[in-house]
Amino acid sequence: MNIHVLSLFPDMFSGVFGASILKKAQEKGAVNLEVTDIRTFSGNKHNQVDDYPYGGGAGMVLKPEPMFSAVEAITAGKQPRIILMCPQGERFTQKKAEELAQETELVFLCGHYEGYDERIRQHLVTDEISIGDFVLTGGELGAMTVIDSVVRLLPGVLGQEDSHIQDSFSTGLLEHPHYTRPAEFRGMKVPDVLLSGNHAKIEQWREEQSLKRTFERRPDLLEQYPLTDKQKLYLEKLKNNRLDA
Amino acid sequence: MNIHVLSLFPDMFSGVFGASILKKAQEKGAVNLEVTDIRTFSGNKHNQVDDYPYGGGAGMVLKPEPMFSAVEAITAGKQPRIILMCPQGERFTQKKAEELAQETELVFLCGHYEGYDERIRQHLVTDEISIGDFVLTGGELGAMTVIDSVVRLLPGVLGQEDSHIQDSFSTGLLEHPHYTRPAEFRGMKVPDVLLSGNHAKIEQWREEQSLKRTFERRPDLLEQYPLTDKQKLYLEKLKNNRLDA
Repeated sequence: MNIHVLSLFPDMFSGVFGASILKKAQEKGAVNLEVTDIRTFSGNKHNQVDDYPYGGGAGMVLKPEPMFSAVEAITAGKQPRIILMCPQGERFTQKKAEELAQETELVFLCGHYEGYDERIRQHLVTDEISIGDFVLTGGELGAMTVIDSVVRLLPGVLGQEDSHIQDSFSTGLLEHPHYTRPAEFRGMKVPDVLLSGNHAKIEQWREEQSLKRTFERRPDLLEQYPLTDKQKLYLEKLKNNRLDA
Repeated sequence: MNIHVLSLFPDMFSGVFGASILKKAQEKGAVNLEVTDIRTFSGNKHNQVDDYPYGGGAGMVLKPEPMFSAVEAITAGKQPRIILMCPQGERFTQKKAEELAQETELVFLCGHYEGYDERIRQHLVTDEISIGDFVLTGGELGAMTVIDSVVRLLPGVLGQEDSHIQDSFSTGLLEHPHYTRPAEFRGMKVPDVLLSGNHAKIEQWREEQSLKRTFERRPDLLEQYPLTDKQKLYLEKLKNNRLDA
C-alpha cells in the first residue's frame, strides 16, 4: 500500500512513522509512507498556502490551488481515496480501518489551525474522517491514528507475537482482565482461578469478565453482539445482582 | 502544567512534541513535557517489563512493578491524575479535555501491543481514556492526541491568530463552509453572498450553513443545542424540503 500525507508540518510524522509497527511495515515492504509539505505546491515565492476568508472573520483558510496541485502531482492519474481529516467528518471506527486496508493507495490531507476552502471538501476529497469530538491543533495526529490502525491490518505486518491481540473492537466485547507475575504484589493478588491450572474454568472466568466489563462500561456494544443463551443467562444474573445490591 | 508520559517507545513523541503548538507551549513555559522509557524501571538487567499471562494464552502482559515504580519516581509524593490510555476507557471528548486542562500535573501510561496487569488498572490509575472504537498498536498516539487537545486550552498557549477558531465542539454546532481566493477556481465559484459585502446576510448564511451541516452530518449535536425560535424555524423548513425532495 502507498500512503501519502499532505501536511504543513511534515516533521511531526518522523517519530511515529519511524518506530514500532509502522517502521517494521515499511521495512517489510508492506507499506510506503510519504509525507509532503503542502507549501511545495504553493505556486508563489512566499510559499503562502492560505488567505483571508471571503465574507470576513478572523483566521485563515487553506487555498484550493496548492491542495489540488499537490494531490494531482502525487496521484499522477491514479484515483486513490483522498481523505480529509476534519472534525466534521465521519467518525473513524475499526470498520472504516478495515475498509481502508483494502485499498492500494491512500492520500491524507491535513489542515492546521485553519479552515479548508470548501471547494477542497466538495471537489477533491472522497472521504472526510474525524477521530472524535475533540479539538486538535491540526489533522496530523488524526492521520497518524488512522494510518496506524490501517497499516497494522495489512497482510504480513503483525508478526505471530503481535497478532494474538484479542482486539476489543474486533471481537465485539471488551477484553477480560490480564495478570502476570508476581502472583502477589504489595498485597494485591492474582485471582485464584488463573493459578488453578483448570483451563475450562479459566476460559469461563475470562468470558464472564469480558461480558461483565462490557456490560459495565460499554453496554451499547452488547446490543449488537450475538449472545449465546448461556451468555444471556449470565448477563441476567449480573443485572439482578446489581439491582439487589 | 507538567505532563509526564511513560512509554516503551519514547522516540515516537519527538516529532509531535517538537512542532507547532506543543513546541510553542513549551517555549512559552506553559507546559513541561517529559517522556520516560518504562524499561528504565524494569528492575532487572534484561530490561524486561512484561511477562506471560497467568492462565495461559498468547501475548504478553505489562508487569505491575515497573509501572508502579515509574509512577512513584515521577510523582514523588504529589497526587496527579494518572491516565491509562486503553480501548476500554472512557471515550475522550472536548469536555474531558477542558477538565484535564484544570490540572497542574498529568501522567500518561501507554502500553504497546500488550495487555496491562489488572492491578495497574485497579490500584494505580485515576482515569482510563480511549480516543475511539478502533485498534491502535499502542497508547502513544492516544496520549499525544489528548495532550494536544489539553495543552491548546492552557492560558497563553494559543495566540491571537489561532484562538479565533470556531471550534466545532466548543460552540456545539459544526462549522459553516469557508472560502478564500480565488473567487473562481477551475469553474468552481465562491457563493455570491460572501462577495456581497452585506454583513448581515453573510452572518445569516453562515448560521444557516452551520445548522444545515450539523443537521445533515451530526443531528445528535442538535438535540443538546439551545436553538432559538428562528433556528428552529429554519430547521423545520430544511426537514420539509428534504421530505418533499
